[in-house]
Amino acid sequence: MSQVNSSMGKRPLMALQRAMNKEVRVRLKNMLEYRGTLINVDSYMNMFLDNAFEHREDGHVSEKLGRVVIRGNNVLYVVLGDESLL
Amino acid sequence: MSQVNSSMGKRPLMALQRAMNKEVRVRLKNMLEYRGTLINVDSYMNMFLDNAFEHREDGHVSEKLGRVVIRGNNVLYVVLGDESLL
Amino acid sequence: MSQVNSSMGKRPLMALQRAMNKEVRVRLKNMLEYRGTLINVDSYMNMFLDNAFEHREDGHVSEKLGRVVIRGNNVLYVVLGDESLL
Amino acid sequence: MSQVNSSMGKRPLMALQRAMNKEVRVRLKNMLEYRGTLINVDSYMNMFLDNAFEHREDGHVSEKLGRVVIRGNNVLYVVLGDESLL
Amino acid sequence: MSQVNSSMGKRPLMALQRAMNKEVRVRLKNMLEYRGTLINVDSYMNMFLDNAFEHREDGHVSEKLGRVVIRGNNVLYVVLGDESLL
Amino acid sequence: MSQVNSSMGKRPLMALQRAMNKEVRVRLKNMLEYRGTLINVDSYMNMFLDNAFEHREDGHVSEKLGRVVIRGNNVLYVVLGDESLL
Amino acid sequence: MSQVNSSMGKRPLMALQRAMNKEVRVRLKNMLEYRGTLINVDSYMNMFLDNAFEHREDGHVSEKLGRVVIRGNNVLYVVLGDESLL
Repeated sequence: MSQVNSSMGKRPLMALQRAMNKEVRVRLKNMLEYRGTLINVDSYMNMFLDNAFEHREDGHVSEKLGRVVIRGNNVLYVVLGDESLL
Repeated sequence: MSQVNSSMGKRPLMALQRAMNKEVRVRLKNMLEYRGTLINVDSYMNMFLDNAFEHREDGHVSEKLGRVVIRGNNVLYVVLGDESLL
Repeated sequence: MSQVNSSMGKRPLMALQRAMNKEVRVRLKNMLEYRGTLINVDSYMNMFLDNAFEHREDGHVSEKLGRVVIRGNNVLYVVLGDESLL
Repeated sequence: MSQVNSSMGKRPLMALQRAMNKEVRVRLKNMLEYRGTLINVDSYMNMFLDNAFEHREDGHVSEKLGRVVIRGNNVLYVVLGDESLL
Repeated sequence: MSQVNSSMGKRPLMALQRAMNKEVRVRLKNMLEYRGTLINVDSYMNMFLDNAFEHREDGHVSEKLGRVVIRGNNVLYVVLGDESLL
Repeated sequence: MSQVNSSMGKRPLMALQRAMNKEVRVRLKNMLEYRGTLINVDSYMNMFLDNAFEHREDGHVSEKLGRVVIRGNNVLYVVLGDESLL
Repeated sequence: MSQVNSSMGKRPLMALQRAMNKEVRVRLKNMLEYRGTLINVDSYMNMFLDNAFEHREDGHVSEKLGRVVIRGNNVLYVVLGDESLL
């Protein structure tokens, strides 16, 4: 998709960048969720998390993963900010 | 897809831009819906919402998400304007 | 897909452009249909409709949406012209 | 996909172009079929048909659509020429 | 995908080009198969077949199609050469 | 995906190139497998095999195909080297 | 997706590069997992593993594969570092 209008305000991906080194929840299309510290993100929403845990759809932890690179095209959404992670 | 005709009138994405800082309903392909204030959108329809809630297909709230970045390629449609959000 | 032959006659998308401000029926891959006035369309078939209603596969209205931006890559087909909307 | 070898003989899409103003059968991935007069086609196989009818997989007409733009990425195949449409 | 190494030997698609005017079997992702004479192929594996027949997964003919353009992104594989068509 | 870092070590696809004229096992997303001699591969992982056989998920041969071009975007993985083919 | 902001910090894919010659766990969208030594990775997340084993979703080994090239667009995530592989 070529850039429709380069002046489309601050990118949503910038919000992801600003969340680096903070806790995030990454929900994938298959509804599994990965919670951890966001170390790095690129423009394809590929993300590198540390201290990551996999959570099933019901929220329970299913696995401790540690350091994980998630491929962007599986991502449904990313919840930012502490409030949502209490 | 290369731009077929650059003069294709005002982009539909401009309508999304004009909805920034307003309430929107974002329906995903899996029929889950996210309602919140649209903070930012880019040309891939990646969207950053604030005060977002997840709604099941029947309209009931399933989760409070707060600040969330939704990946554009999951989007089915975005409802704009107040009337639809009453 | 690069342009195979730039002289491929008038684009099918031009037909969509000429339908701006007219009633259209937009059928999505999930077989839901959106009927409304076509305000805007771009080369990815992203469409901005006004006075839009969602119709189930059986044709019945399932929801009044008002102003809605539909993401092009979900589109199956778009029916143009009045005759089909009687 | 970049062009592997620009001299790859006449494009299959040229065959579609030559079928303009003739009857075609467009089978989609969901196995629904659209028969009508091909008005226009582009390099993404987006097609504009007139006098189009939707046919179920068993061949029976399910709906009269009239003028319809079909999005190319749903297309499975396009049958050209009269013989197959008898 | 950009070209990793332009010297990656003769392209597999060249093998398809060399099969022009010969009998081929085109198996699609939905496991339906189309057998006919390959008239033309492009770098997206869009193919134009003549005297084509549709075969179900069990090999039986389900329909005579005649001249058909098959969209490349549905293709699973293409069997070349006579031996396999006996 | 643009090249993130052109110095990303020898490409995995080079490993496929080095396997030309050797036996490979190509597993597709639908879990069918194609074993044969790799004649050619390109940067989209389109592959041309000779003396190819189709194997079901349980490993049994389901069909002798001979010369076959497999479309890259269906590939799950490719097993190289003899040991795995004993 | 064009680069939104070339200064988006160190790429997540760099983390994969730094894991070359170390043990990784590659989970695919179909939930099968491939464990082995990462020999090489490119910007499409195509990966070349050595001494690779296929593990079912329950973690049990289903097959010894040896040297395998995994196509990037099937990847869900990649777990790095020893801790997770104990």
